[in-house]
Amino acid sequence: MTRLNETHDPSARSWVASASEPGTDFPIQNLPFGVWRRRGDARPPTVGVAIGNQVLDVTACLMAGLLADGVVEPAAACANPSLNALMEMGRDAASALRRALFALLKAGSDAEGRTDLLAPMDEVETFLPAQVGDYTDFYASVHHATNVGSMFRPDNPLLPNYKWVPIGYHGRASSLVPSGTPVRRPHGQLKGPHDDAPVFGPSRSLDYECEVGFFVGAGNALGETIPIERAEDHVWGLCLVNDWSARDVQSWEYQPLGPFLAKNFGTTVAPWVVTLDALEPFRAPRFERAEGDPQPLPHLDSPADRERGGFAVTVEVWLRTERMRAAGEGPTRVSRGSLADMYWTPAQMLAHHASNGCNLQPGDLLASGTISGPTEESRGCMLERTWRGANPLTLPNGEQRKFIDDGDEVILRGWCEREGFARIGFGEAAGVVLPAG
Amino acid sequence: MTRLNETHDPSARSWVASASEPGTDFPIQNLPFGVWRRRGDARPPTVGVAIGNQVLDVTACLMAGLLADGVVEPAAACANPSLNALMEMGRDAASALRRALFALLKAGSDAEGRTDLLAPMDEVETFLPAQVGDYTDFYASVHHATNVGSMFRPDNPLLPNYKWVPIGYHGRASSLVPSGTPVRRPHGQLKGPHDDAPVFGPSRSLDYECEVGFFVGAGNALGETIPIERAEDHVWGLCLVNDWSARDVQSWEYQPLGPFLAKNFGTTVAPWVVTLDALEPFRAPRFERAEGDPQPLPHLDSPADRERGGFAVTVEVWLRTERMRAAGEGPTRVSRGSLADMYWTPAQMLAHHASNGCNLQPGDLLASGTISGPTEESRGCMLERTWRGANPLTLPNGEQRKFIDDGDEVILRGWCEREGFARIGFGEAAGVVLPAG
Repeated sequence: MTRLNETHDPSARSWVASASEPGTDFPIQNLPFGVWRRRGDARPPTVGVAIGNQVLDVTACLMAGLLADGVVEPAAACANPSLNALMEMGRDAASALRRALFALLKAGSDAEGRTDLLAPMDEVETFLPAQVGDYTDFYASVHHATNVGSMFRPDNPLLPNYKWVPIGYHGRASSLVPSGTPVRRPHGQLKGPHDDAPVFGPSRSLDYECEVGFFVGAGNALGETIPIERAEDHVWGLCLVNDWSARDVQSWEYQPLGPFLAKNFGTTVAPWVVTLDALEPFRAPRFERAEGDPQPLPHLDSPADRERGGFAVTVEVWLRTERMRAAGEGPTRVSRGSLADMYWTPAQMLAHHASNGCNLQPGDLLASGTISGPTEESRGCMLERTWRGANPLTLPNGEQRKFIDDGDEVILRGWCEREGFARIGFGEAAGVVLPAG
Repeated sequence: MTRLNETHDPSARSWVASASEPGTDFPIQNLPFGVWRRRGDARPPTVGVAIGNQVLDVTACLMAGLLADGVVEPAAACANPSLNALMEMGRDAASALRRALFALLKAGSDAEGRTDLLAPMDEVETFLPAQVGDYTDFYASVHHATNVGSMFRPDNPLLPNYKWVPIGYHGRASSLVPSGTPVRRPHGQLKGPHDDAPVFGPSRSLDYECEVGFFVGAGNALGETIPIERAEDHVWGLCLVNDWSARDVQSWEYQPLGPFLAKNFGTTVAPWVVTLDALEPFRAPRFERAEGDPQPLPHLDSPADRERGGFAVTVEVWLRTERMRAAGEGPTRVSRGSLADMYWTPAQMLAHHASNGCNLQPGDLLASGTISGPTEESRGCMLERTWRGANPLTLPNGEQRKFIDDGDEVILRGWCEREGFARIGFGEAAGVVLPAG
């Protein structure tokens, strides 16, 4: 682990007191980037950094002369309503900026006490982190693929390509929405296995998918590839993604060209993008192939990928029904999984994506697919969690769920923890389901 | 047919002489929009209109005071490097502008002889017509679906959803390229049915798909639908699209989430977008369902859609190999089909796309999928034309083709013809295949 530096020192403290509170998602060792503005402010939003329960205004830091020459360019790129310009500069520029902001936020810095550079999180609104040109969703959990496959194709659950190809498909960029945006239950064609004909109506099996997304930093030109050994240089940062899915629409429409209307009515993206620098202490070994499983083909394999592996990001799904909200009750946890259980690393997925010369662009979003592990409790969607409704979940207040009901709020949370390091949190990706229109 | 007006009068003549030449794609009755600039001009391109062998500079017309108050706004939207702003105004604004440009270009108008408003086509470069937020590809030829299905799934060629659902999937927006851009043969995972394991290498079965694309004009908000009876108001115009496909990559990767790397290495888009106004005389009845085929569900059916139908656009594929080029020979025709053979109308595809609340945005591109008819000569891709290579094509110079070779140029052409109306052409979508990198 050669990339550790002072920003990973667990004893570092910020002059922003809330950054040192136990359980915070945003200690000084994190410093994730997002797009924000003060609520009620008519000016366009800009790029900021989460610290404790505050947002640091990077543009204000620059204008106050608190950032040295070496990082003026990436800091200036933060005066935009998206992270695209900063992402385009690549990971090194963002690393330098993160280290400069770390120094600025550290107890004893020249900026200490400059609360004018901060805004309390409960007084800001956050936006999509980037203007996403293309959104790609992978299918990287072999547990998820096997579970779903056994429901949709009982005779043929895991297809022969799965362990060779990082399976993915193009999602819809226009319907990516920032956390907090309500999602309307879609209509669609529904046909049960015993129905003669489909009907058009509101989905009866609305689901979430708990995923981690990867934003592309520097891109590649069309016709050029990104070799696996350099793939991680193009992964700018990670965030939580909920790929809402209408399972009944999906099962009827998905052959032969894949999911379409089952997925493109809304995808919730968390506001904070955690950089790979912040995640460096939380490396996880690559998925351990079973006896007889193929090793990755050479273009998906490298000593660096074997050594680095992926990331041990714990992800949780929390549910809060309308009745719970009315009773003043908090959400209840439905599942907990880990990005470390994915069959492919982010670098492998990205290298695969560009292996045919497909051009990835700054701000493009790649997502992992549903994160499911080997246990029932680690299954990252209701389809698997309730086995298509066969085993409904009973919530603490007695309510039952096979899928997601109108008024339910689904909240994804994520973090990394490891002895000897500060806890790195991902914030939340949340959305309430509205009744069909 | 209530929407005919003076712009459809076949006797109308332009003061641009080449617009009256027999066989021109661009008579005064057409006036398709595109993005162009004079070769060597460093200024950003703008929106123009094709007329004969010339491009009309709409911005210059506006600045010369040749456009009346009613169309100043759409004409001003043409001072952009994409059609998005004009598309966003909706079809009525573009209709008004087209009629004003028709009047301006008509013999005897005040602008007669103003060659300073024109640029010869052979002195301009053209670009993607729009900045495409999302690209969606349909699969609307039942002939194509049946042919391909019988090769990929001999036991199950046409899936049970096909005649109910306008099958489509999300394509890649970043790799859309303007006509004339070379396309590099992609690498990918290849595995024959008798191979033990896939290998990674250059595709051995590179193919084109001859399609017609539809650009979205005015969009819809996320969560709102576009009823079928208003769907055509959102179809701004049509153009030729070649959805290059690597068939060997496709057959191995496509289950269960659909085509991905087999399709996202390049998609060629023609420069000229033909408005629905220009196409009004070329209406074609909806696809005639066979005895026992289901009628469209109510959200895909309306009296207006039944009455209007689709469009009888003839499309052709022409091929020019490296040897033909070296010998100074022109391209040879490989196939001829018609958009009228599609199972779904553009309006049905668009209404389906938005039927779950998916937000379509100005400049989004929807494409028909491969246009194949019932005859061998009407099959719009090599996979079908040569039956996966089983019946190679012999070209006039004796060369044979199972798929597309390096150095081959594929050229799509399209037009509408009908007794009593001027011929409306679509120009070309062309691209040469470069060897794998």
